[in-house]
Amino acid sequence: MSSRRFFSFYERASRSFHDCPSLAKLIIFTFTVSSGGLVAYSDSKAYSGINDAVPSDTGTKKKKVLVLGTGWAGTSFLKNVDSSLYDVQVISPRNYFAFTPLLPSVTCGTVEARSIVEPIRNIIRKKSGDIKYWEAECIKIDAKNKKVHCRSNQDVNSEAKEEFLVDYDYLVIAMGARANTFNTPGVEEHCHFLKEVEDAQNIRRSVIDCFERASLPTLSEEERMRNLHFVVVGGGPTGVEFAAELHDFIREDLVKLYPIIQDQVKITLLEAGDHILNMFDKRITAFAEDKFQRDGIDLKLGSMVVKVTDNTISTKERSGDISSVPYGMVVWSTGIGTRPVVMDFMRQIGQTSRRVLATDEWLRVDGCDNIYALGDCATINQRKVMEDISVIFNKADKDHSGTLTVKEFQDVIDDICERYPQVELYLKNNQMKNLVDLLKDSKGNNEKESIEVDIEGFKSSLSQVDSQMKNLPATAQGSYLARCFNRMDECEENPEGPLRFRGMGRHRFHPFRYKHLGQFAPLGGEQTAAQLPGDWVSIGRSSQWLWYSVYASKLVSWRTRVLVISDWTRRFVFGRDSSRI
Amino acid sequence: MSSRRFFSFYERASRSFHDCPSLAKLIIFTFTVSSGGLVAYSDSKAYSGINDAVPSDTGTKKKKVLVLGTGWAGTSFLKNVDSSLYDVQVISPRNYFAFTPLLPSVTCGTVEARSIVEPIRNIIRKKSGDIKYWEAECIKIDAKNKKVHCRSNQDVNSEAKEEFLVDYDYLVIAMGARANTFNTPGVEEHCHFLKEVEDAQNIRRSVIDCFERASLPTLSEEERMRNLHFVVVGGGPTGVEFAAELHDFIREDLVKLYPIIQDQVKITLLEAGDHILNMFDKRITAFAEDKFQRDGIDLKLGSMVVKVTDNTISTKERSGDISSVPYGMVVWSTGIGTRPVVMDFMRQIGQTSRRVLATDEWLRVDGCDNIYALGDCATINQRKVMEDISVIFNKADKDHSGTLTVKEFQDVIDDICERYPQVELYLKNNQMKNLVDLLKDSKGNNEKESIEVDIEGFKSSLSQVDSQMKNLPATAQGSYLARCFNRMDECEENPEGPLRFRGMGRHRFHPFRYKHLGQFAPLGGEQTAAQLPGDWVSIGRSSQWLWYSVYASKLVSWRTRVLVISDWTRRFVFGRDSSRI
Repeated sequence: MSSRRFFSFYERASRSFHDCPSLAKLIIFTFTVSSGGLVAYSDSKAYSGINDAVPSDTGTKKKKVLVLGTGWAGTSFLKNVDSSLYDVQVISPRNYFAFTPLLPSVTCGTVEARSIVEPIRNIIRKKSGDIKYWEAECIKIDAKNKKVHCRSNQDVNSEAKEEFLVDYDYLVIAMGARANTFNTPGVEEHCHFLKEVEDAQNIRRSVIDCFERASLPTLSEEERMRNLHFVVVGGGPTGVEFAAELHDFIREDLVKLYPIIQDQVKITLLEAGDHILNMFDKRITAFAEDKFQRDGIDLKLGSMVVKVTDNTISTKERSGDISSVPYGMVVWSTGIGTRPVVMDFMRQIGQTSRRVLATDEWLRVDGCDNIYALGDCATINQRKVMEDISVIFNKADKDHSGTLTVKEFQDVIDDICERYPQVELYLKNNQMKNLVDLLKDSKGNNEKESIEVDIEGFKSSLSQVDSQMKNLPATAQGSYLARCFNRMDECEENPEGPLRFRGMGRHRFHPFRYKHLGQFAPLGGEQTAAQLPGDWVSIGRSSQWLWYSVYASKLVSWRTRVLVISDWTRRFVFGRDSSRI
Repeated sequence: MSSRRFFSFYERASRSFHDCPSLAKLIIFTFTVSSGGLVAYSDSKAYSGINDAVPSDTGTKKKKVLVLGTGWAGTSFLKNVDSSLYDVQVISPRNYFAFTPLLPSVTCGTVEARSIVEPIRNIIRKKSGDIKYWEAECIKIDAKNKKVHCRSNQDVNSEAKEEFLVDYDYLVIAMGARANTFNTPGVEEHCHFLKEVEDAQNIRRSVIDCFERASLPTLSEEERMRNLHFVVVGGGPTGVEFAAELHDFIREDLVKLYPIIQDQVKITLLEAGDHILNMFDKRITAFAEDKFQRDGIDLKLGSMVVKVTDNTISTKERSGDISSVPYGMVVWSTGIGTRPVVMDFMRQIGQTSRRVLATDEWLRVDGCDNIYALGDCATINQRKVMEDISVIFNKADKDHSGTLTVKEFQDVIDDICERYPQVELYLKNNQMKNLVDLLKDSKGNNEKESIEVDIEGFKSSLSQVDSQMKNLPATAQGSYLARCFNRMDECEENPEGPLRFRGMGRHRFHPFRYKHLGQFAPLGGEQTAAQLPGDWVSIGRSSQWLWYSVYASKLVSWRTRVLVISDWTRRFVFGRDSSRI
């Protein structure tokens, strides 16, 4: 789900300003925030450090770059890669890019499905060079032979689905993730997910179905209540936003059309943890929980779903009690799981115990040459300082004196901070101005100039920094990787990355760098919570407008921007449509 | 299919003017025409003649009116009936009204499906009184017990579909028709129809599927050609409009996105008759056939489909040859067939040899009390003059002299013309000014005043008029019937219909009267043919704009009007979307 929440706004904004400066200025706020999650950007001065093993000669024949997936990561890579340098091929079962942050809005018709999608062929035809797209699913990655096995979505010969092999020189895996059911029995069969455009459309139809079923004349009161019980599992931004959208849809539109049953509708939100929106500031969580209580949304915290049948959902409470309630519809939104083809690939390359693919800081899959992974199917496996502590010390100790002076240390500070971003985070969290404070602190010596540490002192100074490492959302990686690809030759000659502590020279590219910018949580009723950098929290109608502006600005094309804005306008004027189509 | 082609424009226009005068004036042209078919209106002075057996007392308890269907006829009845006088109930498997004339536009994304639908609950909540709607299908009409058997679309108890019985005092059957396959093998399984909103959505996806399949890298040339072969069966307005829309979609939008395959696309239109659009003026047919030829649409006349398999379609030519061609997609649009439930009802009431339900001129089903049928599932069985010739003569011969004078005849002329509209049509087609000319003609006597005819002379004068009878499109019947229902009591006391020739007094209501106003045939490339009353034919861009205006004005609500116009605008600016959703 992270890809639907994280964006690179600056780069988008700058591109928009470039494409259409005055119009863009009207719409885009200089603010950089986002919805239902975090916002991030990677500096536009192009961080780098892409796979240094990549051969730099593009030769007479262009290298083949094969991109798997047309979600955020894949599309962003495609939009930014210089397609005149490579022979680019794209494979995805969906021939469009979907602006996933608006999926919860699609479930209730606040925005139309078609308004948030852009055909991938529209995107690639604006690029120079010949990019090929094939509508197919990747069913196996054969890293050894540099081939990918694909299968068409459809019956081509009316008998069997077409399968084919595609070669590559570079493989970019951006297949995203699937919903995570935690192997709970019945979830796959009876619950709706909220990952794809089709999911949102199915939910929309299903809501109307529940209301129409409940309106039938012969139903018992009990069956009527069951059909009007909507359950949302998972108190993350997606689940919360869906519950809020559904509540608005019912209160603002459906009650007028189904008046006899309005008092029998019930929305329940089940969250296994102690609070909803637990990745947000406590003030936001408290506000959201209060608002849901006022709205009559039944919030059940500490409630873990253990089983779903065709008409009941069973939960285990903190107390150990298991209870079952009848439902009309369940939406399951508890996080992301691994796609089978990625799982299979992870087995091939020995990454068996992980949840998603591990890459290095340049997005190269650990243990593979020329394979990159980005977006929800991967996480960056940040190298620990303590693993490299000796080589760092040796590199820094230029005169090989066995001790490090402040002067020597200052020469490599920037490289250390770039290569190991956890160091900077540690300093910030411990309110230190720079690395020298770290050394000083460990020595207890206040005279900065005279500080000298040996390897042991150095180790103990840095012993805590790796504790700051955490898995960061996979955002803005597509454009980062594209920029690396575009400057492959240039940076081969003039590496721009940090010092190689374990080798000679510098890394070719800056490593990928995540920067947190803020997050949104739409709570319904024109109320949106925004959490911005620097602990700034804003809740209410103004954040809602900020949310509208940011989303409008981030849509992938002017077409989708116009459509989404007209959808919003339409909703204000006419309300949401309740036709079952 | 007739319901998608015929409208009552005047009444709609006048209602629109009433609802929102200035806005309406901006959009609505004073012109009254329509697309892909005929246009009609029933005079706003409320024709009548509804089932005279209907008891006139509404009593203390309101009579139950049960409406089956939410298509043109049912919705129009609902919108116009005074729901404070009756207890109105509506049953339909679709909880929305669809503006079917725009379905061909939906197939290619020129207009969005949601823009042409209006929730039926939106329509009924604007009415006074309590109208009930249930989303269910009528599976059996039990006229004997005045009950209707219904089944919900959905699994209500997750086990079985809910079935229930509904009583009625008056039953209004407006269930429309289904596609007619003429029992051609394979059609049901392999062809798309174009009757419902879902059909149009499926066609849209299917077109994109064909293009994506054809783009796969491993396909043989032959398979690629097959996938890009689109076949339309039926050269009526719907088939022609779809072929034209598809041609535009491909030439204007898809070629840009699928450049390598643009020369391999082929559209074939199969028509069993000698010409396409054979209900139109010959000039229009010729223009359309020419245009299709120029556009490269392969027009096969005299070609009857005999079999469809999963990838080939077999046709029998005039010569008797049978040939098979491979196809990627077939759209079947050859006219309308009877729904099984209507067929079953026809068997019950002895109307076995007919294609659709027969009603009298007041829309009452022949042989049934209190059951009305309108729209595509019924036709009016116009009473023949020759059946009633003696009673007409006797009624007219006031002095019982055995001969009819011109004076006597003139007294009943209006009643005869209203009761037997074929008389008027006969006069018009034979360029006679009035009925007296008819008598004069048969006598060869030029002195008008002195004409006197006996029963034999009268018979021979009128012997040819019944040849003018034809089945007229079922249009504007909903509002006609609603107006009859609304004036049930009033007209019981003061009957407004023509003389009862076979009984005493007058008919309670004017009989339903069809009036032809014109027809449209959109031919693609901004070219539309319009055939207006008085043999006026217009082909080209101006008719296209007329078509836009008329359609915009006829849409069921301001919401759909705004949506459709914004869809058209969007198509002009951004083109059609090719995402497979």
